[in-house]
Amino acid sequence: MKIAILTIGDELLNGDLADTNTSSIARRLITHSLPVHEAATTGDRETGIVAALTRLAATHDAVVVTGGLGPTVDDRTAKAAATAFDRPLSLNDMALRQIRERFRTMKRYMHPANEKQAMLPGRSTVIANRNGTAPGFHLQHHEADLYFLPGVPREMLAMLDDYIIPSLLERFPDPPLLSQQIVTVMGLPEPEVESRINSEPLPEGVELAFNVELPTVQVKLRARGKDARKRVDRAEVIVRRALGEHVVGFGDETLAAATAKHLITTGLSLSLAESCTGGLIAKLLTDQAGASAFLERSVVTYANSAKIDCLHVPADILEHHGAVSEACAVAMARGVKDASRTDIGLAVTGIAGPDGGTEDKPIGTVFMAMTGPDGEYVEKFLFQGDREQVRIRTACVALDWLRRLAMHRISGATQEE
Amino acid sequence: MKIAILTIGDELLNGDLADTNTSSIARRLITHSLPVHEAATTGDRETGIVAALTRLAATHDAVVVTGGLGPTVDDRTAKAAATAFDRPLSLNDMALRQIRERFRTMKRYMHPANEKQAMLPGRSTVIANRNGTAPGFHLQHHEADLYFLPGVPREMLAMLDDYIIPSLLERFPDPPLLSQQIVTVMGLPEPEVESRINSEPLPEGVELAFNVELPTVQVKLRARGKDARKRVDRAEVIVRRALGEHVVGFGDETLAAATAKHLITTGLSLSLAESCTGGLIAKLLTDQAGASAFLERSVVTYANSAKIDCLHVPADILEHHGAVSEACAVAMARGVKDASRTDIGLAVTGIAGPDGGTEDKPIGTVFMAMTGPDGEYVEKFLFQGDREQVRIRTACVALDWLRRLAMHRISGATQEE
Repeated sequence: MKIAILTIGDELLNGDLADTNTSSIARRLITHSLPVHEAATTGDRETGIVAALTRLAATHDAVVVTGGLGPTVDDRTAKAAATAFDRPLSLNDMALRQIRERFRTMKRYMHPANEKQAMLPGRSTVIANRNGTAPGFHLQHHEADLYFLPGVPREMLAMLDDYIIPSLLERFPDPPLLSQQIVTVMGLPEPEVESRINSEPLPEGVELAFNVELPTVQVKLRARGKDARKRVDRAEVIVRRALGEHVVGFGDETLAAATAKHLITTGLSLSLAESCTGGLIAKLLTDQAGASAFLERSVVTYANSAKIDCLHVPADILEHHGAVSEACAVAMARGVKDASRTDIGLAVTGIAGPDGGTEDKPIGTVFMAMTGPDGEYVEKFLFQGDREQVRIRTACVALDWLRRLAMHRISGATQEE
Repeated sequence: MKIAILTIGDELLNGDLADTNTSSIARRLITHSLPVHEAATTGDRETGIVAALTRLAATHDAVVVTGGLGPTVDDRTAKAAATAFDRPLSLNDMALRQIRERFRTMKRYMHPANEKQAMLPGRSTVIANRNGTAPGFHLQHHEADLYFLPGVPREMLAMLDDYIIPSLLERFPDPPLLSQQIVTVMGLPEPEVESRINSEPLPEGVELAFNVELPTVQVKLRARGKDARKRVDRAEVIVRRALGEHVVGFGDETLAAATAKHLITTGLSLSLAESCTGGLIAKLLTDQAGASAFLERSVVTYANSAKIDCLHVPADILEHHGAVSEACAVAMARGVKDASRTDIGLAVTGIAGPDGGTEDKPIGTVFMAMTGPDGEYVEKFLFQGDREQVRIRTACVALDWLRRLAMHRISGATQEE
């Protein structure tokens, strides 16, 4: 079974709009074990659409097409389908009734241009659109099923669920079973992740893929066919064993979500003192619903005056060691913990760039300190990259420190029981 | 001149990742009047990559390919190019040197797997990657130029600017003239933006397009041919006049960048007190290099104890009005301004969800207060959407308040002169 997706629109080829339809269609199809084989994008010109339709229909069992079904002159998909498959356009009564009904329930005036949306290639089946005015259509050409949908994500996805997925499952009633698991890993480069996993053979037929979203690496485990779930589960055990504490989470779980979850479990309270990250650590933690259970405050002390006022960093530390120093990071962590009376205080201070670097402390120099129930830690980092990267790497290492501290507390508590 | 983009990766066809490379490449090419004719996506299988490369090379003058150049087993683009164009892989000395040099400057251990990234199809020109380890390469096949880049956006875009655009402009020195301008607008819905602009006719041949990135709207003005630049400039004047203060910036300038720029110009200092935004406002401002010129601190007071300690919010305000109230927002803004001795204090407090909403104060209720050299403002908002949307809308309105305050100071100062 080979499925293709074709997205149509000048806006997708001139940089005005990123194509999100392909990935959201693919995500729904794969949950029904219907994998997508190829995707293509063409502009609004009829010749381009005809060429893409002809090619994809000849090489695939099914093609899902989105875009170009609107009422305006630059919507040419139905016309192109008529040309590609030699079935002249004609007024489709069912489509016209649905369009009229839609305008009636919306209590909106129906512009004559909207009648054009009922002109469909001959022998098409109408696909009802419960969220908009443009009907979709389905036609068969030789061995291929072609499904045409509007480009608006909300309309298109509902039609995919209502009509296309049932139609595909009817044609391919027993798609090969597909199971997958995603493991997010922190603190190891991609080749190191791969070589650690490869130290033990994975169950037969389990495919391994990697996706780097610095500074984390996502490991994808996939299997098809009989016992696919079991084999993926066994592979997951191997990956966990190979990567140990570097495993952050499974499935959709991000580093920030895992950190928040574990902190909530421990019941520990947290305060942050951020300098170079400028609020990013707090932002990532408070993206998670429920962060108020542990985060008491974060003090973004961009100026030295703020470090002295809010965190009681001694002025002579700033004078003798500078704001970007081990001594200052420790003083910040202690200061915010004491002021907030929380269990953990974590502080970062560094040089994110593009200015401010020196020979001694180049851009990317970051000091991180954490003081908590298990003692005090401080470390110096030299992160690569531009301002954005230095900031995100710093924030992720901070989250990872908190995650590990929480996990140790949890496993320690379990062992004591 | 026909240019195609080919993106490679299973993650693009199984719904794990939306393809943003195509639109960001297209956006850069079009600013050099280099339009993209077609885009395609294929998975990691070699046969699929070979078929796509063969087809696109036969039908286009240039093909920009991204993805599949990593060090792991599922990276097969170089191998597929070698097969498609019949030039066996060989170790490219220049590529190997660049990879080694990259690891050396990063002070990171080079895993043997990374040597694979220097195995390139014969007679390729290496495209240097200044942001990562995977070198790109350029090869010519019959009439087509093929450019291969890694999939990581930051690496890929720099290589596009450094090598591919100059190479394309050398081959096509006189592309048809195209001019465009982007105007970013805050505080008006898309139909209102459109109707205000349409109240005055635009110069002939200037196309208008909209791109909504809530809560801002981007207006794109485009013209081709003779005098394209002049006509776009005249259209920009009309748009400025129609939208007035709602115009945030031009070209790539974001709301946060415009706000930072204007604050720096005024010389005013700023402190923030954030509750529901949890550091997001500070994060957006400190994304901008040079934010230390105005931002003294941001206090993320997630807990009531932090509001009392850091901002001296009177306990009876929290008791009688609650943390999400006009009185609390005003007390927070005054508190942070007084403590930091800055010119401006801005505070937000609200309910981002998914929990915490009540009948009286549903999710999306936000109070914002600003106290500064021109007086004190406070406003209640009811933002639509989920946690993420409420947070981003709140942060953008806060940035817009600061931007307008700064702009009024600047224009006031100019008038006084």
